Amino acid sequence: MVRAAAERLHGKARRTPLLSSPFLDELAGRRVWVKAECLQHTGSFKFRGAWSAISALSKADRACGVIAFSSGNHAQGVALAAARHGIGAVIIMPSDAPVIKIANTRALGAEVVMYDRATEDRDAVAAKINETRNLTLIKPFDNRFVIAGQGTTGLEIAGQAREAGVTKAEVLVPCGGGGLTSGIALALEAEAPDMGVRPCEPEGFDDVTRSLATGQPQVNERTTGSICDAIITPTPGLLTLPIMQRLCGAGVVVSDDECLHAMALAFDRLRIVIEPGGAAALAAALFHGDQLTGTDTIVVVSGGNVDRPMFIKALTDFRGA
Amino acid sequence: MVRAAAERLHGKARRTPLLSSPFLDELAGRRVWVKAECLQHTGSFKFRGAWSAISALSKADRACGVIAFSSGNHAQGVALAAARHGIGAVIIMPSDAPVIKIANTRALGAEVVMYDRATEDRDAVAAKINETRNLTLIKPFDNRFVIAGQGTTGLEIAGQAREAGVTKAEVLVPCGGGGLTSGIALALEAEAPDMGVRPCEPEGFDDVTRSLATGQPQVNERTTGSICDAIITPTPGLLTLPIMQRLCGAGVVVSDDECLHAMALAFDRLRIVIEPGGAAALAAALFHGDQLTGTDTIVVVSGGNVDRPMFIKALTDFRGA
Repeated sequence: MVRAAAERLHGKARRTPLLSSPFLDELAGRRVWVKAECLQHTGSFKFRGAWSAISALSKADRACGVIAFSSGNHAQGVALAAARHGIGAVIIMPSDAPVIKIANTRALGAEVVMYDRATEDRDAVAAKINETRNLTLIKPFDNRFVIAGQGTTGLEIAGQAREAGVTKAEVLVPCGGGGLTSGIALALEAEAPDMGVRPCEPEGFDDVTRSLATGQPQVNERTTGSICDAIITPTPGLLTLPIMQRLCGAGVVVSDDECLHAMALAFDRLRIVIEPGGAAALAAALFHGDQLTGTDTIVVVSGGNVDRPMFIKALTDFRGA
Repeated sequence: MVRAAAERLHGKARRTPLLSSPFLDELAGRRVWVKAECLQHTGSFKFRGAWSAISALSKADRACGVIAFSSGNHAQGVALAAARHGIGAVIIMPSDAPVIKIANTRALGAEVVMYDRATEDRDAVAAKINETRNLTLIKPFDNRFVIAGQGTTGLEIAGQAREAGVTKAEVLVPCGGGGLTSGIALALEAEAPDMGVRPCEPEGFDDVTRSLATGQPQVNERTTGSICDAIITPTPGLLTLPIMQRLCGAGVVVSDDECLHAMALAFDRLRIVIEPGGAAALAAALFHGDQLTGTDTIVVVSGGNVDRPMFIKALTDFRGA
């Protein structure tokens, strides 16, 4: 399914570069390779899964349009993938979502419907909209075509690492619901069996790390309180957790400050813009090397949709290297 | 020579991505494609020319090492290319060069020699060093192998534009001495003859624009006074100007503020870090569309080595889109 998704995505998604810097290598104590999905369309890997899922629909279903819930990157990925298929997209967004993300999603052509997190049930909002429209729901990670689409990142990593002479490495992935992590793990199982995937999560939102450690799905105590908004999903996906249990190594937990510091170092040394959640794997490679093994680490930078004040904070508060 | 340089650079330089954003397209009023050389090794296209020149030396000459004058991007490009060839590099830097650029050049393995711009002649400094060492001087733009190396950017542009369905476009290039501009123009003459190159320069440092307009080499009145430090060369190169005269369209002149604004918009929409001089062509596309023609513009972002305070200024002072 990942390979089939790659065919559907060919010429549609960007083959993002695998970057590196001798300065980051020195800081990490090993070679660090950075898969820059912040350079993907809409600024995150989410475009891959959205395109994969929409392009896999039957012609009749696709013509009716799609619907998604998201306050951020999935919203923009679905909006652009739908627009480029020439179909409609309804995105249900919480009314407290960042203004810029709402504006961007609308500007990409989606019909944005707001709901109040405190007083309304988003499923009911969606059901009401869908009474007459037969929109297909595109879930952010618990959808096989979405997982396969995110997995195309892993196919590219395998090929690009091989070109760089790397066949054995730990691959660190920022992890929310696990769509990207499980997709990459599936791709690497086939294409680069000497690469092991490690999910990376923010402190206090380490449901996947704890689920892998205990063998049972764990739920985060809080639903807010990290700047890593893109990856603070409450609990692993039903489809993604079994894949991660079978294929992934232990999770790595990072602090918000480590993510900001990684963002600042990536500004200095890679000239890319990363959002806090998207920097979790880079933070793990740079600041938790004691939990890693081997001479090469590949990190996925999953997104770059960060507000200017947050980025300025990263550049102001954290030193260079 | 450009094609031969591309063979020597294969697997050594990055094939940087060609990025775009519907938001920037709307702002510019045409499609804008961004060749992100800020993602090249050492953060600018200069690595290409440096590698090309060093790899073209005879084995005996190369073994003696190289020498270069530069306060910035050329210094880092030569330092890394020399280090990766396993040879020594002496870089003569003015003592008022940014501390970070001096530190980076040293960290990349070069022997940095400082001189005082006010009281010392850099050629004399270099001659003294070279009395006993037989180092080869790598000029920043008036060197055929350097021009050919920078031209590999143009080969990639031709291929990537073709993949995107674009065969006719104006190609805007930030222009200092003209190495990158003339190299790209040569590559496109052969590979994409329907593409015309336009050099882009900062106000007050538009020597190439005026030289093209008058048919005679012009000199800038000032040597300092723009934040676009990477492209304020006093006059066009002896080798580069005839190439630009034969192949380039009229220059486009942009203000420092337009460069900062373009940097801020690239942060928002492309998630890349651009230095002021590296943003000159993007600024031309976004703010001087009245001087351009056609439905597609390709802009080269030539570098991303910007200090944090300058980048914060761009993000703080200029609005989004």
